[in-house]
Amino acid sequence: MLMLKVLKTFTTAAQFQCKRALCASGAMSHSKYEYVRQYESDDKLLPNCWIVIRIDGKAFHKFSDVHQFQKPNDKPALDLMNRCAERVLDQFRDVLLAYGQSDEYSFVFRKDTVLYNRRASKLMTNIVSQFGSSYVFYWKDFFPEKQLKFPPVFDARAVLYPTNLTLRDYLSWRQVDCHINNLYNTTFWNLVLKGGLTNQQAQEKLKGTFAADKNEILFSQFGINYNNERDQFKKGTTIYRERVEVPMENGQIKIRSKITATHCDIIGDGFWEDHTYLLDPYKDA
Amino acid sequence: MLMLKVLKTFTTAAQFQCKRALCASGAMSHSKYEYVRQYESDDKLLPNCWIVIRIDGKAFHKFSDVHQFQKPNDKPALDLMNRCAERVLDQFRDVLLAYGQSDEYSFVFRKDTVLYNRRASKLMTNIVSQFGSSYVFYWKDFFPEKQLKFPPVFDARAVLYPTNLTLRDYLSWRQVDCHINNLYNTTFWNLVLKGGLTNQQAQEKLKGTFAADKNEILFSQFGINYNNERDQFKKGTTIYRERVEVPMENGQIKIRSKITATHCDIIGDGFWEDHTYLLDPYKDA
Amino acid sequence: MLMLKVLKTFTTAAQFQCKRALCASGAMSHSKYEYVRQYESDDKLLPNCWIVIRIDGKAFHKFSDVHQFQKPNDKPALDLMNRCAERVLDQFRDVLLAYGQSDEYSFVFRKDTVLYNRRASKLMTNIVSQFGSSYVFYWKDFFPEKQLKFPPVFDARAVLYPTNLTLRDYLSWRQVDCHINNLYNTTFWNLVLKGGLTNQQAQEKLKGTFAADKNEILFSQFGINYNNERDQFKKGTTIYRERVEVPMENGQIKIRSKITATHCDIIGDGFWEDHTYLLDPYKDA
Amino acid sequence: MLMLKVLKTFTTAAQFQCKRALCASGAMSHSKYEYVRQYESDDKLLPNCWIVIRIDGKAFHKFSDVHQFQKPNDKPALDLMNRCAERVLDQFRDVLLAYGQSDEYSFVFRKDTVLYNRRASKLMTNIVSQFGSSYVFYWKDFFPEKQLKFPPVFDARAVLYPTNLTLRDYLSWRQVDCHINNLYNTTFWNLVLKGGLTNQQAQEKLKGTFAADKNEILFSQFGINYNNERDQFKKGTTIYRERVEVPMENGQIKIRSKITATHCDIIGDGFWEDHTYLLDPYKDA
Repeated sequence: MLMLKVLKTFTTAAQFQCKRALCASGAMSHSKYEYVRQYESDDKLLPNCWIVIRIDGKAFHKFSDVHQFQKPNDKPALDLMNRCAERVLDQFRDVLLAYGQSDEYSFVFRKDTVLYNRRASKLMTNIVSQFGSSYVFYWKDFFPEKQLKFPPVFDARAVLYPTNLTLRDYLSWRQVDCHINNLYNTTFWNLVLKGGLTNQQAQEKLKGTFAADKNEILFSQFGINYNNERDQFKKGTTIYRERVEVPMENGQIKIRSKITATHCDIIGDGFWEDHTYLLDPYKDA
Repeated sequence: MLMLKVLKTFTTAAQFQCKRALCASGAMSHSKYEYVRQYESDDKLLPNCWIVIRIDGKAFHKFSDVHQFQKPNDKPALDLMNRCAERVLDQFRDVLLAYGQSDEYSFVFRKDTVLYNRRASKLMTNIVSQFGSSYVFYWKDFFPEKQLKFPPVFDARAVLYPTNLTLRDYLSWRQVDCHINNLYNTTFWNLVLKGGLTNQQAQEKLKGTFAADKNEILFSQFGINYNNERDQFKKGTTIYRERVEVPMENGQIKIRSKITATHCDIIGDGFWEDHTYLLDPYKDA
Repeated sequence: MLMLKVLKTFTTAAQFQCKRALCASGAMSHSKYEYVRQYESDDKLLPNCWIVIRIDGKAFHKFSDVHQFQKPNDKPALDLMNRCAERVLDQFRDVLLAYGQSDEYSFVFRKDTVLYNRRASKLMTNIVSQFGSSYVFYWKDFFPEKQLKFPPVFDARAVLYPTNLTLRDYLSWRQVDCHINNLYNTTFWNLVLKGGLTNQQAQEKLKGTFAADKNEILFSQFGINYNNERDQFKKGTTIYRERVEVPMENGQIKIRSKITATHCDIIGDGFWEDHTYLLDPYKDA
Repeated sequence: MLMLKVLKTFTTAAQFQCKRALCASGAMSHSKYEYVRQYESDDKLLPNCWIVIRIDGKAFHKFSDVHQFQKPNDKPALDLMNRCAERVLDQFRDVLLAYGQSDEYSFVFRKDTVLYNRRASKLMTNIVSQFGSSYVFYWKDFFPEKQLKFPPVFDARAVLYPTNLTLRDYLSWRQVDCHINNLYNTTFWNLVLKGGLTNQQAQEKLKGTFAADKNEILFSQFGINYNNERDQFKKGTTIYRERVEVPMENGQIKIRSKITATHCDIIGDGFWEDHTYLLDPYKDA
């Protein structure tokens, strides 16, 4: 059962080290160290799936405090987030749509994008880097009187959604999250800022309450009808490429795309029926 | 802030379907369906790390019962496992060493193997397939009187270990596991088969006992000195390529490799000091 | 710009080695080596996508020669492949359908399977191992007079298809491949076995020919109408779970599933329209 | 061979949609959409390997032109890169060392870091985002007279190196790259800016030349001894945590870490012998 074979299996230390040297090509611009490139790995994302890149502020609680953002929502800060997202759509033509709320933003790439050969790391880092540097760059447009104290940090992740339904469910998930957090925060900060409760007391009071309870607290205690709050705060912001028809000199019409922002509901079918050109071309394709 | 751009972003359904057609090359052997190959992903393992493929019997409790394997160890069954492992080493020259116990076997590829371009799925499936079909093929050599009732199944996984120390720790982990399980099983089955306990009772009796307790039970109740049990049962089996010097007709000596099995300890330094040619060439390389 | 910080960054060799020891829990069944499990990686496949596991014979040219398989098709050998595939469907309930030709077989898992938590390595290795050991196990049923000379090896890969269209395109790709290869092989082996050409000459003669040319050679030189060849050779084999209605004693009807084989076309819509229960439940879900 | 089994294999469309609903927990903060989180994948990096995050300027040729960076090297621009890298080391305590040149920077994490559970996407995006926003934030400190025209973008990748040798080879690779590019660029821009050649002519002249040729051109035509060029340009910048001993009031000595920059050679052994505390604790661990 035991076999004798010509010995090709053993490597001496000397031979092993040689492998490194063998990579040294004659080409002038290459060095014997270039073999280390082989340690890079491929992270190509599955074709024909929606690619969502979600960026998220790192330690934005502290960032908000240091920069004295208004509670529960600081409009200039949210507008700045939207400005950065528009910059991303402007620079990355394959981003079809983005949805943002609080300190996060999700960017949806066309299902059939081949940008960076669909490499996850390239897509993630380009988007997050564009967003983060834009945040500092456009800061003064939204806070002309306020000094930026330190550079903010965002992280990012890439997630695949194989169908239109799962993509819409993803976006619905984020918008539901926006709603739940904003209702909570609006009630919490009214209790604290106008109601005189400590943070601890407000937290206790809201423990276990339902949406209806919070609506009631807002209305009865502070005369606030939550429905009348800004849509930007309640619904977040959806930025997408709108199709617009542009009349040309020769009487014909050109179709162009315009980066457009809205604060509407994207959970129901309405938005998607009004903009069928966004998802329909990819139906079960 | 909003921009008008020439519309390159929208895809009509018709255009999208076209992508599929575009893959159809003129080459006779290609079809318009071949684009589906792009959905395959790369799973190349990091270079310069030890690759361990561990295979594991699926539902071997049932398999052992159906084939009436002797408890706690069935020597022919373990010998058959070893035979299959030898077949793997014989067929895959880059497997340097293997360690097996119970219904599992670990195969260690040379740190610098480029077999199948180090693709994890290729390495795993080739090994597990060779092992499983060998199990059926060699069955009759080990069980001439016993019919194989159904084909066995093994699963496999690939794990990387970047250093010699972590590889040795991996092998130690498996040998410690062998020891713990074998001591337990030996005591358990003596209690059941000779001591007349039910499985349930034996389990209860062993709950919370230490190694010393089990040794004591074996000795006092059944006159068994655990140290005298077969090394194959206590230590498992290590199969490796041994270096042997073969004298040639011209008086010179050829170094060849021989697939060798041993049941020795591989946790301590002894085995490795006696076979420095196995790991040393890869020291921190 | 340079900062002094309390030194938490440096690790001494002693501290580093300690990390290993820290993993040693008090639990009896754990050892200080168990930390090596952390080197295993997760390979969970994206949810809601079709999982295809394709197995492929390794070096089956040689295997066919050694076992003197008939050219261009050996029916018992193909029937054995089908038998193994049926065993896979029988053992893995989440495999909905399989398609095989030559020495390969593709197994399609339900889009929503959670078997092995969708871990690629588990799925691949279980399937390939079941297939390979079955091949040896059932060999004698198909070759009662022929000795299996050595255990065969198959490899496997896992590929995801996010939509019904891409899955059907995948299956079409394999069936087109079957057609192209079988027409070529049928002509080639007739030229060699009946036409007296050498392998080299036959290859030369077929270089650059189209399907029509090969049909013409078969018909004019050997009186063979390719259309009359066995469907099993021309179309391969599709094995699927058929829905059958079983009358019960109480007069009601139970729906059960039956593993069924067919050699029909699966490129056109016919098969899928006749068996809408296979893919339709997953339409854009 | 065919079997009848109770039908558990078929899913109706209605049942399939239900899966989505089932995820809806009673918990107030969860929605029925939350199941989409399962589409996120794990990208934990292999333990016990050096993690290198390399960031790279996107389209920095254009960026340099727009901001009229001096050729071949703009010292303030390089100093700004270094300032951003220092910010990264200051914010991410597990970055042991960084090496930068031109518009790229490599950050080396401790081999045993567990930051973000070693998730590749978290590590990459945090680093690149911190770097990019710092670039805009610190711009005015280095270009008090120059307006930043648009926010810059960097991408990032994560690469693993399992041994000290491969890590040093990686760093050597980047420093050799720096040397080759800087010698080329220095010669090229002297030919263009002082020698009056067009870009095209300079490129032609340098085609196929060796290092010695370029040194000769610099010396004979422009009186430049390349050795006298700034080390920052020739060698790039290495930023690391230096160990410093700080005397305390009680006469004892505290060891602290200081973020230190140097432009020395890191290919030879000198730097590493002078700072053994950087890599030695991880020797073959």
